[in-house]
Amino acid sequence: MNYAIIKRTIGWILIFEALFFAVPVLTAAVYGEKEIVDFLVAMLSCAAVGCLLLIGKPKNSSVYAKEGFVIVALSWIFLSLFGAIPLRTSGAYSTYVDALFEIVSGFTTTGASVLPGDKVEALPRCILMWRSFTHWVGGMGILVFILAFLPLCGGGYNINIMKAESPGPSVSKLVPKMRATAGILYLIYTVLTLLQFILLVFDMPAFDALNTAFSTAGTGGFAIKADGFAGYSPYSQVVVTVFMVIFSINFASYYFVLRGKFKDALNTEVRVFLGIVVVAITAITINLCITQSYGYTTGEAVRHSAFSVASIISTTGFATENFDLWPAFSKSILVLIMFIGACAGSTGGGMKVSRMVVLFKGAAHETKRMIHPKQVKKITVDKRVVENEVVRGINSYFFAYIIIFILSLLAISLDCGDMTTNFTAVTATINNVGPGLGAVGPAGHYGDFSWWSKLVFIFDMLVGRLEVFPMLVLFMPATWKK
Amino acid sequence: MNYAIIKRTIGWILIFEALFFAVPVLTAAVYGEKEIVDFLVAMLSCAAVGCLLLIGKPKNSSVYAKEGFVIVALSWIFLSLFGAIPLRTSGAYSTYVDALFEIVSGFTTTGASVLPGDKVEALPRCILMWRSFTHWVGGMGILVFILAFLPLCGGGYNINIMKAESPGPSVSKLVPKMRATAGILYLIYTVLTLLQFILLVFDMPAFDALNTAFSTAGTGGFAIKADGFAGYSPYSQVVVTVFMVIFSINFASYYFVLRGKFKDALNTEVRVFLGIVVVAITAITINLCITQSYGYTTGEAVRHSAFSVASIISTTGFATENFDLWPAFSKSILVLIMFIGACAGSTGGGMKVSRMVVLFKGAAHETKRMIHPKQVKKITVDKRVVENEVVRGINSYFFAYIIIFILSLLAISLDCGDMTTNFTAVTATINNVGPGLGAVGPAGHYGDFSWWSKLVFIFDMLVGRLEVFPMLVLFMPATWKK
Repeated sequence: MNYAIIKRTIGWILIFEALFFAVPVLTAAVYGEKEIVDFLVAMLSCAAVGCLLLIGKPKNSSVYAKEGFVIVALSWIFLSLFGAIPLRTSGAYSTYVDALFEIVSGFTTTGASVLPGDKVEALPRCILMWRSFTHWVGGMGILVFILAFLPLCGGGYNINIMKAESPGPSVSKLVPKMRATAGILYLIYTVLTLLQFILLVFDMPAFDALNTAFSTAGTGGFAIKADGFAGYSPYSQVVVTVFMVIFSINFASYYFVLRGKFKDALNTEVRVFLGIVVVAITAITINLCITQSYGYTTGEAVRHSAFSVASIISTTGFATENFDLWPAFSKSILVLIMFIGACAGSTGGGMKVSRMVVLFKGAAHETKRMIHPKQVKKITVDKRVVENEVVRGINSYFFAYIIIFILSLLAISLDCGDMTTNFTAVTATINNVGPGLGAVGPAGHYGDFSWWSKLVFIFDMLVGRLEVFPMLVLFMPATWKK
Repeated sequence: MNYAIIKRTIGWILIFEALFFAVPVLTAAVYGEKEIVDFLVAMLSCAAVGCLLLIGKPKNSSVYAKEGFVIVALSWIFLSLFGAIPLRTSGAYSTYVDALFEIVSGFTTTGASVLPGDKVEALPRCILMWRSFTHWVGGMGILVFILAFLPLCGGGYNINIMKAESPGPSVSKLVPKMRATAGILYLIYTVLTLLQFILLVFDMPAFDALNTAFSTAGTGGFAIKADGFAGYSPYSQVVVTVFMVIFSINFASYYFVLRGKFKDALNTEVRVFLGIVVVAITAITINLCITQSYGYTTGEAVRHSAFSVASIISTTGFATENFDLWPAFSKSILVLIMFIGACAGSTGGGMKVSRMVVLFKGAAHETKRMIHPKQVKKITVDKRVVENEVVRGINSYFFAYIIIFILSLLAISLDCGDMTTNFTAVTATINNVGPGLGAVGPAGHYGDFSWWSKLVFIFDMLVGRLEVFPMLVLFMPATWKK
């Protein structure tokens, strides 16, 4: 294990976090909020610790897969540990665990809150902005961000970091250099965020538009209003619906569109993803229209259904309606698409559509092999063979995911909540969605769980965002052996 | 596709079912019940249709994997379709779908009932006996039963049938001939059932003892009393607890014990299974004792916890207590072990411990491979290498299981039940357990679901008992192509 390079990376992470704190500091300055002190203190401590860690240059710059995972996992943990400080010191959150839950929820783009809606709305603007900004930073990946700006190390470093931090079973190199790829991705990300901001700012205050744009871009879902997104105009709701879908699609697709390669842009994963979105919206709309008691017009049913489906499958978690009150069929669909999640290489969470495609093809393949045992073909996606190694990795990912899910469910059930709340709370955190059903539904929050359960959720949110293996690697004794 | 041999096998199945009907006919004769007519009519129609199907000898006796799956799936479907007839014609069940649900629940050893407890207790004794007897026949497998008695076809037939019908990822040949293996397994099964009957008959009426023995041996769980197993003495409850565990262990282990090969008997799967049982009983006992409100003495807590764990992990589904009223942690453990289930090669359901072991080792293996990509080792269980093919098959099985689970959940949620009921109803049927939580808890029943949901459950029970692939193969277009 190359400890020197891990230390150095965490040093850089903290320096960058000190820079990120400029956003809430500026917000506090603009609105004259006293919490500016808390953010300045946090900023300075980040910078100080960061500089201390940067002392001394690593002799050996070699980074293998193992170091990649450890670096990513530890970076996210340190980022969160420091990011939570001002939330606690400002007194906005009553315990450090609460503050940590909130900021992990931010960086992992989960959007689950320990505060009820009215208390969120009453938060100082600098804290609201910090929450939303963590979504934006976490969405595309903090290390990918740093990679785009800083030549930290050699090629082995970049590729292994990207592999460990980027969502999805494999990383697509857009251009030969990994650093340039990271830069292109962040450029697309920034332009799309800006575009959404512009479309929203006509219809809501600039502060709201900026928060919403950050939160949508990272598919995070922290709301700044007590009623979530219900109070905004249908125009804004439609804009956000469309952008939630946009940010759920592999960013490589946008690069292909820019280069005129439309066929590459509309690959299997994107087609399947859009297909699921359309089917889910249609099914829920019909379900809502048939179940008369909700009193929606068809237009409203389509709008709310589209907003909710886009919000859940992108794992954003905004809400225009309390879907916890919808019929069981609609709720089941929403819980199901929480697991599916967005496309690989997007800012969305969940298991990712591309993994689902491979798992489906694998199962169909095995069933066929049972009928014709001698007919051995390989699984292909987009006419490219999926190597056995990748298939095995995805299968193990799937199983590990389910096991962590089940152990988390057991752990939090010590709190004695009802089964629906417990089940969907784990679903909504491990898939980085945010709201579940029952006590953690769109009208609820996570504040009533014990500190113990909150730590479990913190772990699950990190497991979800970093896609299982970096967190597992931390707990493998083999990782720390010489 | 060798249609002639499929037709012939179904013919034999129906002839044997006609013989099975002798059990309820005899019961009705002893107790002078008028339902004897219904069973006689069903018996004759089975025999008649069976004989018709046996006309003509197949020219080609070759049976491949594909035919094996189709034969097994269709055999179970026909067995159930005819087995349900007397339940409907006697008027005990108000629709044919209800009768079919009940008898599929019987053959698949699920033990879920559409009737509430008091109505079950009021059923004629011949119907109670038929229900319990279907558990006994279904537990070890109907085709394995026929195989043990009848030289139907050549070697390819026997091995492919055993593979498709026996629970677990692979079939262990105890002796070189498959027919002899089937005979040994049924002999062990019969002796153990008899032993349990003798231990119970001292403490309860012979009719109750016989029903309980059939139901426990098949790990079925149909109760004949309104209060399930709560009314029997602690002695009987302990006997049943022990036998539920006994019938959850691979029958090959008992054969090894008889031959003095104790090391082979206590293989990894058995050790892991017993470990899970002990841990689960301990955890639930502590949980029940700490949560004072239940008022159990420690002895009672141990007894009820052991009974429930044995009942659920063996997928029997008997109940001494309404565990739906237990704390969330205990309930979560019970739901979790529903999925794990019993050992391969036992009469229990669920995903089977051996599959869990391979899935766990696979996930650990992949995580290790991430740390040391070049270190390629194979997964071993009991010092034998698990071939990649088997690992892939298990992974696909797991995924297909989850997908069928989710689709079923969606389908039955159209009924608008609560999430806990829906979730555990699918869990309890696809794992062949019987009782779930909420409306389908130990004090509830499945009668209030729509005919549509009942058909979904019927499908799920068959999927669970036949372990996914035979039912999937039925729906693959490739199966029916020339």
